Order: sequence, then C-alpha cells, then structure tokens
Amino acid sequence: MSSSTRNQSNPAPETLRYVPVDHSRVTFDGGFWKSWTQTVRDVTIPTQHKRLEEEGFLEVLDFDKPAGPLARPIQPSGLSMQHFFDSDFGKWIEAASYTLKAHPNPDIESKIDAIVEKLEHGQMADGYLNSWFIRREPGKRWTNLRDLHEMYSMGHLLEGAVAYFEATGKRRFLDVMIRAVDHIIDTFGREPGKLRGYDAHEEIELALVKLYRITRDPRHLALATYFVDERGQMPSYYDEEAIKRGERPEDYVYKTYAYSQAHMPVREQEQVVGHAVRAMYLFSAMADLAYENNDTSLKAACDKLFDNLTSRQLYVTGGLGPSASNEGFTREFDLPNETAYAETCAAVALGFWSHRMAQTDLDGKFTDKLETVLFNGALSGIARDGEHYFYENVLESHGQHRRWKWHYCPCCPTNIARFVTSLGQYFYSAKPGELAVHLYGANVAELPLGDRLLRLRQETNYPWDGDIRLQVSIDQPSRFILRLRIPAWCREASVSVNGEVIALDACTVKGYAALDREWRNDDEVRIALPMPVDRLYAHPAVSEDGGRVALQRGPVVYCVEETDIGCEPQRLRLPASTELAVRYDSALLGGAAVLEGTAFEAGTADWANALYRTSPPALKARPFRAIPYHLWANRDAGAMAIWLQEA
Amino acid sequence: MSSSTRNQSNPAPETLRYVPVDHSRVTFDGGFWKSWTQTVRDVTIPTQHKRLEEEGFLEVLDFDKPAGPLARPIQPSGLSMQHFFDSDFGKWIEAASYTLKAHPNPDIESKIDAIVEKLEHGQMADGYLNSWFIRREPGKRWTNLRDLHEMYSMGHLLEGAVAYFEATGKRRFLDVMIRAVDHIIDTFGREPGKLRGYDAHEEIELALVKLYRITRDPRHLALATYFVDERGQMPSYYDEEAIKRGERPEDYVYKTYAYSQAHMPVREQEQVVGHAVRAMYLFSAMADLAYENNDTSLKAACDKLFDNLTSRQLYVTGGLGPSASNEGFTREFDLPNETAYAETCAAVALGFWSHRMAQTDLDGKFTDKLETVLFNGALSGIARDGEHYFYENVLESHGQHRRWKWHYCPCCPTNIARFVTSLGQYFYSAKPGELAVHLYGANVAELPLGDRLLRLRQETNYPWDGDIRLQVSIDQPSRFILRLRIPAWCREASVSVNGEVIALDACTVKGYAALDREWRNDDEVRIALPMPVDRLYAHPAVSEDGGRVALQRGPVVYCVEETDIGCEPQRLRLPASTELAVRYDSALLGGAAVLEGTAFEAGTADWANALYRTSPPALKARPFRAIPYHLWANRDAGAMAIWLQEA
Repeated sequence: MSSSTRNQSNPAPETLRYVPVDHSRVTFDGGFWKSWTQTVRDVTIPTQHKRLEEEGFLEVLDFDKPAGPLARPIQPSGLSMQHFFDSDFGKWIEAASYTLKAHPNPDIESKIDAIVEKLEHGQMADGYLNSWFIRREPGKRWTNLRDLHEMYSMGHLLEGAVAYFEATGKRRFLDVMIRAVDHIIDTFGREPGKLRGYDAHEEIELALVKLYRITRDPRHLALATYFVDERGQMPSYYDEEAIKRGERPEDYVYKTYAYSQAHMPVREQEQVVGHAVRAMYLFSAMADLAYENNDTSLKAACDKLFDNLTSRQLYVTGGLGPSASNEGFTREFDLPNETAYAETCAAVALGFWSHRMAQTDLDGKFTDKLETVLFNGALSGIARDGEHYFYENVLESHGQHRRWKWHYCPCCPTNIARFVTSLGQYFYSAKPGELAVHLYGANVAELPLGDRLLRLRQETNYPWDGDIRLQVSIDQPSRFILRLRIPAWCREASVSVNGEVIALDACTVKGYAALDREWRNDDEVRIALPMPVDRLYAHPAVSEDGGRVALQRGPVVYCVEETDIGCEPQRLRLPASTELAVRYDSALLGGAAVLEGTAFEAGTADWANALYRTSPPALKARPFRAIPYHLWANRDAGAMAIWLQEA
Repeated sequence: MSSSTRNQSNPAPETLRYVPVDHSRVTFDGGFWKSWTQTVRDVTIPTQHKRLEEEGFLEVLDFDKPAGPLARPIQPSGLSMQHFFDSDFGKWIEAASYTLKAHPNPDIESKIDAIVEKLEHGQMADGYLNSWFIRREPGKRWTNLRDLHEMYSMGHLLEGAVAYFEATGKRRFLDVMIRAVDHIIDTFGREPGKLRGYDAHEEIELALVKLYRITRDPRHLALATYFVDERGQMPSYYDEEAIKRGERPEDYVYKTYAYSQAHMPVREQEQVVGHAVRAMYLFSAMADLAYENNDTSLKAACDKLFDNLTSRQLYVTGGLGPSASNEGFTREFDLPNETAYAETCAAVALGFWSHRMAQTDLDGKFTDKLETVLFNGALSGIARDGEHYFYENVLESHGQHRRWKWHYCPCCPTNIARFVTSLGQYFYSAKPGELAVHLYGANVAELPLGDRLLRLRQETNYPWDGDIRLQVSIDQPSRFILRLRIPAWCREASVSVNGEVIALDACTVKGYAALDREWRNDDEVRIALPMPVDRLYAHPAVSEDGGRVALQRGPVVYCVEETDIGCEPQRLRLPASTELAVRYDSALLGGAAVLEGTAFEAGTADWANALYRTSPPALKARPFRAIPYHLWANRDAGAMAIWLQEA
C-alpha cells in the first residue's frame, strides 16, 4: 500500500494533542539559525545581563537597602518603569536558562543564582513577591491590578523559574515562585473573602500553565483558568478597585478596558483589540487552557480572534498593533507603514500563540504565521550583532529609525532572546504515532517516538532556498505518520520518500502532508518548496498599501534600503513586468538571498522649486536590490520601504 | 498710448510699500463670501461667546473671587490650559470687533465692555495684566517665558484692544493694554536691570506693530523690534531662566528651542522649524518689521523661509505643520495625509504672513498662498454651520475625524473667525498712484485714491468660475496703476479694459498685471481666468503622495468623500485619462462646483479572507464626485481623501 493511499483513508489529524519537542533536543548545527542562535547565546544573553546591571534594574532587588532615587530608565513622561523591572530579569533568566542544558555556563548560572538569592531573601512571609510593592509601596499591594503589572511581573519570574528548573534541576527559584503562587491562590478567586481580580497585563496565566505542566498541581491550572474566565466580567473589577482607591473609574487614562481585553468575557470577543502584547499573551493562555482543559469554547474564541487578526489586522511581516498611543490595535485594516508600532514583543507573542494553536489543531494557517513572525516581524527586532534592538518594527522609514542599545522599556530584547534560545521547540511536535515538522531550517533533532528516540536531520539552506533533505535515523523500523508542513506561500511543493514522489494533493490536510508508513533507518525525505519571488498585494481596504507591492520569497519578506540603491526607496516605481533575479550574497550580514532588478525612479531633477505641479514625475531606470526585511538597519542609516509603488 | 505700452515702460512695482484697505470698506454683498461672512458674524461670533462663558473661560476674570478649581477644559494630560485663556477671549474680541463698524451690535459691544471692565479691574498697579499669573501664581510672573505663554496672551488682548478701538473709537481697552505694554517696556530689554527675555510663543510682536500703527509711539515699534532681534541669541534666555527656577535646562520637554524658533537668531534661520503657529506669528512680525523698519535683512530672512516652506513643507491645501507631537514641522517633504496636524491656526497665520509679505514686495507667490489657505486649509477649519470646527485639518480620513463644538485648546475657532471677519483687508492694497487687487470674489469696495475714494465692484461667481467683471466708479478721471493678480494656477488668463484686450505678457510682473491708465467712471475690466480641472502631482520626495493625484480647479482643492461615492475614496483609482466634468451643485451646502467622472474601484469581493495575495485587486468602474475640500465633514461621517491613487 502506498503512503498516499494509506493517507487518504485517514486524512484528519488525530484528536489527541501534540506535544512540542523539548527545545534542547534540537541542535542548529548549520544553516540559517546556527549563527543566530550562537549570537544570541554568546552575545545577547551576556550583554543583556550587563545592561540590567548598569541600568540599575538589578538594584531593585537590594531589599535591605532603603529604596533610593527611582532607577533609570524612565518613560518619556518622566515616570519610572521600575514597577515592572522584575519582568525584565525574569525574562532574561528564562532566555538564559534555555541555553544552559546544551551549553552549560557557570558564569550565567551564578548570575541567575545571585538574582534568585535576592528574590528569596526579599519574598514576604506570606509568599508575596514583587520588588516594587515590597520596597516602594509596601501598603499598596493588590490595590491596582489595572495599571501596575503586579502579576505580569510575577508571571515573568515564574516563567523564568520554570525554565531554570528545567535547565538545571535546581528547585530553589521554582519553590520561591510556587510560594508566590500559593499566595495568589489565597488572595484571588471567587471564594468568599478573596478578591475577584485579574491582572490587566496578561502574562501570569500562561506562566501558570507552564508551572502546572511541571507540578501537575490542579490548583495551578485552576488559577489560570479562573483568571481567564473572570476577565471582562461585569461589573468590572477595575471599576470597583478604582473606587476603593478613591478614584473615578472614568478617569482611566486608556478610557476603555478593551485596552486590556477586559471589556467583555473572553469567549465573547471576536475582534482583536487593545494593547497588542497583552492580547497575544491572553490568547496564548486561552490556547493553553483550551489544550489542557479540552475547552472547545475557548478554542472557538481563539479561532475567531486568529481569523480576525490574520485577515484584517496583521502586517505582511507578522508585525501587529499599528498604534503607539495604545501600543496596539485601532480599526481593522489600519496598517500604516512608517508609523507602525508593531512591537517586537507582540510579534514574538504571536509566535507563541500560533504555535500553541497548532498543538491542538494541526493547521498550517497557524504555523504559517509562526514562520512569518520568525523570519520577519520578530527577527527584525534584534540586530545582526545581537546587541542592538528595535522596539517598533516599522515597515517604512525615512532614515529616522535606528536600532538602540537599550530602551526605557526594554521588554523586547529579552523577548526576542527567549524566542531564539528556545527555538527548537517550534520545529517539531509529537503525539503517539505521529511526528509533525512545522518549520524548516538546518538542524539535527532527537525526537520522541513512544519510548524511543528518532534522530532527524534537516539539511537545507532554507530560507534561502526551498530544497530540504530529511534524513531519518532510527534503531529499528517503526510505523508512524510524519506530518510535513507545506507552507501556504508555496504553490508547487513536491515531496519524495527514498526517491518515490508523493501525491501531495491526496495526503495534505490543512497545510500538512501526512506520510504514514513504516520508517526505516536512513530513509530520506526530500521536500522541494520552489521559491519564486512573489509580488504581494494588500486588501484594498488597507489604504496605505494601495497601488503598492511587497516582495516576498519563501517565508522571507523583502525591503529596499536607501543604502543599497542611492535614493529613497519611496521614489521607486516597480512595474508589474520588472524581472527580479535572486542572488545569494555571502557578503551581506552573514549571507542572504537578495533580489535584484531594474526599477524606475521618480526623478526630481526637473522639479526646480516646485512642490506640486500638473505633470507627473519623470521616471528613469535605476538598478535596485531588495534585502530580507529582518536584516534592515544593520548598515548605514537611510530610508527603507517594504511596500513599493507599483508603477 | 495703449495701456500695455505704458506698462512696458514701468514694469516693476514701486518701492513704496502698499497699505491694505480697511476691511470695513469691503462689502461682500453677493457671491462666495457673502454667506460665509454672514454666518461668521451671525452664528460664529455669538456662539463663541456662549462657549467661552459655559466652558468657564470668562470666570478667570473674576479677580475678586478666590481662584476655584481649575477651569475646564483640560488637556488630555490632565493639565489646565487656563494659563492662556486670556488669548481666547482676546481673539474673540478681535474677531467680533471687525464686524462692528459695518454691523453695529449693542449686545456684542456690551459683552466686550464687560470683559474690558473686568480686565481693567484686575490689572495690577504697575500695568501687569495676565489673569493666570495674577490669580493663580501671583509670585511667579515673568519667571517662565519658555512655557507659559505670558506675553502671547497679552499680545492677543492687545490685538483685541486695537481692533475694538478701531471699530468703536472707545479707548478704555486700548489704554489698559498700553499700560500693560508700558509695564513690559519697563521689564524687558537690553538696558541694565531689565530682563533680556522674549516669549517662546510669538504673538505680542505683531500685536505691538498693530499698536504702533495707531499710536505711532516709537517705543511700541522698538519693543517689537527688540523681541525679534533678541530671539535665539545665545546663551539662551530660556536656559538662564530655567536655572533660576532651579530646573535643568536639558529637561525641557520639547528638547530644542527650535520648537519656538529660538534656536538661533532669526536672520540666520533658513528652514521653517518647530511649532507651526509660533513660526507663522514670528514670520508675520518679521514681515511687519521689515516693512516698518525698511529692514532688508529681515525681508531676506523671510524670503528664504517662505521659499523653504512653500517648496518643501506645505500641504497642497496650504495646511502646514505635519506633526501632532510638536504641533509643527518635522523633516522636509514629510507631509503625511491622514495624520496631518495642519492646525487651522497655522493656515490662518500663513495667510497673515503671506499678506504681509505682499505689502512690501508685490509678488503673486505670496498672494497665491494667501488664496490657497483661504479657500482650503484655513476655511476647512470651520463647518458650514459656523459653529463646529476642526483643529487638525487632515488630508485623508477613514471617518474618524469629525468636527467638534468646542475643544480643550480652542485657539482655532477664534482665529478662523477673525480671518473671515477682517477678510476685506486681504482683497485690496493701495499706495500712491496704485491699487492692487489680490483676491477675487464678489464684493463692492471703497478704495482710497489719494484723498478721494474709488468705488470698485467685483461681479463674479469666483471661485466657481473664473470670469470677473470689475466696475470702476469714480467722480472724475484719474490716472493710476491698477494691479491685478494673475494666479499662478491660471495658465491662460486674459484681461480686457472696456473691451480692449490687454497684452498680459507685456505688463505682468511677478504675478500682477499692471494696468496703468487714466481711469474713468464706468470703466469696466474683464478678467477671464479659465479653470480647467488640474491634476496635481507632488514632488517625488513626498513619499505619501507617490503614485497619487490631487484635483484642483482654480484655487480650490478637491476631495472625495465616502458619503458621495459609497466606498472609501482610498480604494479609487483615477487613470490619467479619466474625464472630469464640472457641475455647479446648488444643493450642496450652499452651492459649490463639483467634479464628476468615472473612476475605478479596487474591488474586495474576490478577496475572501485574504489580507495579502499575489494578484492585484480587480478594478471595476465606479462613478464618483469630488467636492471642495473646505466643505468636507459637513454631512454624513465617512472616509475622505484628497490624494487619490492614479491607477
């Protein structure tokens, strides 16, 4: 029986959920991700600790000293952001921990231990742990969940503790945080005497699910479930809390609790609104709870929201949240390019959410977006040198956007770091009798197959070309379904197993080709994902992109930088007939495929002093090249554009 | 000798400067401006007083009462703007005064008198007059010229006092303000013991010139001259002042004194920077001082700045200052449409500046811009009903922009009001042996001609068509040069006198045709300014307008509103071949010429759930119409665009 026949009889993924592979089982021993993962491990992680130190973040843990002047950095408004510094070193610990299993590092470990010691020392007798409230506002804990990120910070510490425990087996940080969670359980809930609150900045919910997956303590899952279920119930907890503080609820600076996705119960939400990172963290938690609780109503809400996001509110880069004023969403189809906020954290968190969705419902529409953010809107947040960053990932610039060394709100650097250091987990998932390959890129992985391990090697230059060779190493023949993601951007994929071509139409369901067979050692799968240069057009309701075209090849979105072409790319006109050649440029920032061709430039020579005139600009031919968007702003300052005028 | 021959021999305007006609000598007894001036007089002026009352602005003048809670309205930041409320009723008095000579109104006059009485009562013994500092911060006067608009407010009171004196002959308000100016003269200047300061928000400079033109007191002109000359001298007065207040100069919220055009001496400034209204008020004062002092260095600075503004930083509507964050300028060619700030006040003030420039240097490049703001970027700031307003005059909207009844910073309503109620002065100027006609529109004017008056009637439907008939009424024949502005937008103007065609090429200098002849009673000048629909293109460096076209006819810029076409105008594609018909629509908001044709709409029907795809949108024909931009947002809410995709 051929594999394709077999697959026809069983086209749907099993209902049992997938489990992502442990990230440490995947080694990027070559190709695209090798240098990125090395850079983040060797440059990003150490320099971030240095910044946390020199910028005063870690001073907040000196619990025995009187709280001195407010630590830098401050917001432009002059307010300290010290009240959520815990989250920053929490996230740094998480990012660093992911590197330790495969690459033990006593120096990093001792730095983490030093932080843990201080946290344990500062923790209050009842388990409460938040450095801002303990040191700065000791009488005010749990009085303002709306504004002060109290549980958000604790959630990031918790994620750090889980990661550090998994990396090292050391329980100390984990135990500190379990005590903190116990305190939260004692404080919040529907039982009499408890506060019916939930943090306006979601985060602890998904951290609690991670904790539950270690402890299997049902109270941990129940607390996350409570927070998600309680969210947006009316009358609003934030109203009551404001009144208790002697404030008028209507004076809330963001005006609407939609800012925190707390304007209605989560299952009723159909449009993605408010602060983008908050939304993505909430939806990640909702996907986690749908998974853990078999909660189809949460899954259905996630599906609607994912559809809303991806069909009406997502940049072509996977960036999201167009507006700086609420760090989030505005109206549907509002996707301005130069003023795009598109925070790195939001793109990373869309990766979290997409990935989680795919574990319950193996659908390429989720992993396609994971891949989009990975190669574009998230990766653009970190410089090729591993120590400069973007917070906002604009799609167009006149040269005013440059990467920075540190930021007054440095949430993004540690977020992109933890994404990259745990990258392996996004590549593969398993469930009994099945392995799913979500992402492509050179690596070697040890994948669980029942009680045995299968070694899978990907050989490829992906994303610079679409030819992938999968080599199976297994100690004895074994029947299982290997599910291969066929990216939606690829219109002519082909797959062969040991030279035998697979009929993809027959075995592909929701973007995954199912190869159901008895696999043997040295079996070879070849996947060809042809990568012509695609000209992308935006939905006509996206008025900023009207008459414009974006270039994409494979999963990589391209941009044009002034430094490459000698004029602002905003002046280019790219007729539909323009031929675009692909060339691998090994000298470009570690190597990348670039696109080259001849476009037209709207000339300025004959404009004299006119700002407006009755004849259109004269066009003259100009060679140009486009580079992967994620590599922009790593060279000379200058203008950049993704969406180019078509004619 | 034919007039054209005569003109050839004397093509250049005389060096003597022009004097604008008194606005009350011009009566709009028909045509475009009749209903606007009536509406502003009968609706705008009374309702603005009502708003000032009901919003608590006038309560700041209750000097005998303890200062109560901070009056509304407040800024979004929560700060009161009460510290410059004086400017708002100062400007209202000015606007209202301009109506009084031709249309006496005891009710308005008594309302002004009531304000004047309170101001006089509150004025301090040494002449100081500013309600905020007298009532709220009595010890702090003259300690923060950088931030608190102290002289700006006094300047607007002074302009109000001058206008009220001219309208009624009553001296009380004028005397109050002369005492206030005396106090300023005692306080500021280069003499020992005086402060070498100047207000960061320019305004008093031009008010002092107005005062000087009444008093002919050289100290009044000298004070204005001092303020302009001192501006931007280093070390900065604002640095010294901040240090005196115990603040660090570098903590200045706007970071750079360019915000107030105080970063370098005014004669060295070549690029228009900072807060747009401040810049326009400063440049207006510079033009005034160039005029009064025969100061060629100030004139030269103005010329450079005017060129910079109009060739690199001006919206097609005459709006200016693209950015909300500094209410002003950013980089050159940065002219975003949907986020345009383009404050009404700034456009009005560009009118002030342009008009002043033309009095020293009769050049159509100045009056062309006066006309542009008049019919577009300034007039758009007031609704057709005369009681709703825009502060920001965007060039594109998705329907989120609606006119408001009042604003937390209501500087614009009284500014557009005073522009309209004094409109007559912008139409004509005179100097010995010459009359200049700057603007077209039905009116009848009594113009000074030596010691006699000439009556000039304009009959025209301008700006809806370009045929103008000027009829001269004069009691005896008189030789003088009549200079007629030939707008730059008009490429085929023709002029005849009593049926005799004038050779315009021969007699036109810098946009003005000079008709030098002996004029007799009943002489008739016919001016034909053909108005085809112009398709305008922006300089290629204006990236927002790349591939787009704007429609203009005569001086009127057009826009397309969703309410007229049933889809967002952002989706329209207007091929270069589209025929555009002109039709006068008497039912449209009092009547206007509209443009009609068939364009294409980028269709959304075949997009299903896609946000991006590899094929461009399908185009389908759609009839559309464009209306004058200044009339937008007077009907149903919806999207609007000036710059339309060309194809």
